[in-house]
Amino acid sequence: MATTDAGFEAGFKARLHWSADTDAQVEQRVAEILAEVERRGDAAVLAYTARFDGLQAASLQELELTQAELEAAFDGLPAAQRQALQQAAARVRTYHEAQKKAAGESWSYRDADGTLLGQKVTPLDRVGIYVPGGKAAYPSSVLMNAIPAHVAGVAEIIMVVPTPARWDGVTPSARGEKNPLVLAAAHVAGVTRAFTIGGAQAVAALAYGTQTVPRVDKITGPGNAYVASAKRRVFGRVGIDMIAGPSEILVLADGSTPADWVAMDLFSQAEHDELAQSILLCPDAAYIDRVQAEIDRLLPQMPRAGIIAKSLTGRGALIHTRSMEEACEISNRIAPEHLEIASTEPHRWEPLLRHAGAIFLGGYTSESLGDYCAGPNHVLPTSSTARFSSPLGVYDFQKRSSIIEVSEQGAQVLGEIASVLAHGEGLQAHARAAEMRLRR
Amino acid sequence: MATTDAGFEAGFKARLHWSADTDAQVEQRVAEILAEVERRGDAAVLAYTARFDGLQAASLQELELTQAELEAAFDGLPAAQRQALQQAAARVRTYHEAQKKAAGESWSYRDADGTLLGQKVTPLDRVGIYVPGGKAAYPSSVLMNAIPAHVAGVAEIIMVVPTPARWDGVTPSARGEKNPLVLAAAHVAGVTRAFTIGGAQAVAALAYGTQTVPRVDKITGPGNAYVASAKRRVFGRVGIDMIAGPSEILVLADGSTPADWVAMDLFSQAEHDELAQSILLCPDAAYIDRVQAEIDRLLPQMPRAGIIAKSLTGRGALIHTRSMEEACEISNRIAPEHLEIASTEPHRWEPLLRHAGAIFLGGYTSESLGDYCAGPNHVLPTSSTARFSSPLGVYDFQKRSSIIEVSEQGAQVLGEIASVLAHGEGLQAHARAAEMRLRR
Repeated sequence: MATTDAGFEAGFKARLHWSADTDAQVEQRVAEILAEVERRGDAAVLAYTARFDGLQAASLQELELTQAELEAAFDGLPAAQRQALQQAAARVRTYHEAQKKAAGESWSYRDADGTLLGQKVTPLDRVGIYVPGGKAAYPSSVLMNAIPAHVAGVAEIIMVVPTPARWDGVTPSARGEKNPLVLAAAHVAGVTRAFTIGGAQAVAALAYGTQTVPRVDKITGPGNAYVASAKRRVFGRVGIDMIAGPSEILVLADGSTPADWVAMDLFSQAEHDELAQSILLCPDAAYIDRVQAEIDRLLPQMPRAGIIAKSLTGRGALIHTRSMEEACEISNRIAPEHLEIASTEPHRWEPLLRHAGAIFLGGYTSESLGDYCAGPNHVLPTSSTARFSSPLGVYDFQKRSSIIEVSEQGAQVLGEIASVLAHGEGLQAHARAAEMRLRR
Repeated sequence: MATTDAGFEAGFKARLHWSADTDAQVEQRVAEILAEVERRGDAAVLAYTARFDGLQAASLQELELTQAELEAAFDGLPAAQRQALQQAAARVRTYHEAQKKAAGESWSYRDADGTLLGQKVTPLDRVGIYVPGGKAAYPSSVLMNAIPAHVAGVAEIIMVVPTPARWDGVTPSARGEKNPLVLAAAHVAGVTRAFTIGGAQAVAALAYGTQTVPRVDKITGPGNAYVASAKRRVFGRVGIDMIAGPSEILVLADGSTPADWVAMDLFSQAEHDELAQSILLCPDAAYIDRVQAEIDRLLPQMPRAGIIAKSLTGRGALIHTRSMEEACEISNRIAPEHLEIASTEPHRWEPLLRHAGAIFLGGYTSESLGDYCAGPNHVLPTSSTARFSSPLGVYDFQKRSSIIEVSEQGAQVLGEIASVLAHGEGLQAHARAAEMRLRR
């Protein structure tokens, strides 16, 4: 595909198209699940867990993981995994501490009249983290959700992770499949309590609280269509993070990065699932050919070759642009989740890039280094929402309160202004409240 | 009501209860309006504006307000109103500039390996501001929404404000009723373009874009049930601010502030509408009696006495607490939008208060001074959402992009960690991408 093609605009739009439209049947079932959990609490959560996860328990207490279990999972890992988890956690913590210091502290000033103005920044009291179970269980997501909450100063972090039983579809089992890396990550990240529940019923338990699961103030973390629908519905009762769409990478290449590195970076997005999107923008046609050749050479070696091939064929694109400048413009239209600048002069192009979840500069910065351990968060805005939203961060686990202390002197000045505007809006009590503070 | 009453808990909960539950009929109509505007653009907006606002126009261009009209509205105001608008705008601008400086700038650091990590903070490209028309038309809201966007650096601020015609219900008119203070505020606040459209059709026009109305990245501002439902539905396509519930004030009083001042502050919330909530918490029973006496004395003088009386009777409460400490605890449970500390030692109580949209310290700080001109934003989280959300601010009109530039040396360290974790998650392309950057 080339930007000079006659049909480029239409083809490009079709390739980008992805709809978050929800399924009416899913919506209906989720509404029922939420209502049941709000009404019946633990009993409803237990019933849905038996039905959907094939996991039988006499009480929700049985589905709580103890700190000892989390620690044992960590202790049972191979040394290399233990160390990698700890190193990744340390780097993520350092980055988010810098983020808190840069933009997450209270501030105030006094004006000439002695009036104090500012903002007090405080952590949320209690948050819930949803961690998907089954085949897409990512311990790195536990770190990326829990550590910013911890750094923000959140006192209680409640994790939910479904552990569906290998199920014959008839008799629920008492033993679900727990992912030891996920449990170990919860230990490393400092999760306060953890429950092996999932789906809309887990979101409902966190949003409303049950006899056993405490009500939280915000729920973050990815999940399937049921989880996404449930989060959307409880929004307002609790805070939520973004509803994530398929993951995306966009690589801007000037031809200086080894073609096999770029091919593998495209694969690393495509291997997530068939809807994931990998796009290369490059002004050098010969380089695009080399990347294509590396794709063809490397694909058969990949264990997830089937998924990668489907993602690249259905949603991917190698696009020949007129220039790097045009590539940057197209990138701004896409507002990609992950944006690699595979160039020897990444700082030349970075200022031209207005919208992206994360920007990876230079050939050594593969997206996968950022996904796991560079330090910044890997929970990023998808589906063009980087136009208006940001990576998950410490700020998502804090809130601000305005601070105003008007001095007697200040009240004389402000009272006159407020009185005029309040009368203009027909709000006489507002005006009188301001006027009462005037020395007349 | 006293916290020592046997039935306090139940009575208190009943008083606080407010449900944001949506009306199925409203939902259905809003879904239709959104779909029509997305499909037909200008033509659909014109048709709904004729039908709902009784306002007839041949094209959407006719419904655009020129900068000259906004300026003329400003020039036509009495001098006191012109000056009050400008003074309020200047103070709001100063505060939000301080906010940007404290928490809204890009930052970065290099680690020992020379790897660069940070965040780039950029303004949104284009935002939409919804301004209600009719009887609840508040020019102060125009300032409070547009100025933070302006300070953030947003290039285009698109305002929509319905100007319904005085309508006989049969023949739409070509002239809607424009509020000159609202138009003047748009001039003062630096609105880029303004359209006299409203309702779900205006939200749809901003979210999807039409032939005439440009598509925005985020929509802020209050509105009726149709507007709230439309904002909720377009969330994800564009960003939105919070969906606001009824306004609330909570006054913590130690008995040192003149009782008539506190009574008027309670009125100034109650006069908004019958669902607004005004609560006083005080450990001094005699003071509560004095406030009640002032309420009885002042109420008949108020032009909006009917609304105030209904709000206070249906939703208000004067609560006798055991102590100021208990009053602070109750306040934290409520997480009020506006929180006044009517005390001679407000800084003694402020640290105990964890959740509030804005905290007004000391007897001179009436909420109304904050509403209009102290400087902080008056768009604040309602209905207990101060547990997890913040005042509207510069940060709502900015987004962040993570910046990562891994050095060759850094890639050696990070590559080993990422490789272990990626293999642990079964994502081999992630691992290979990291491993390719290793010097072996």
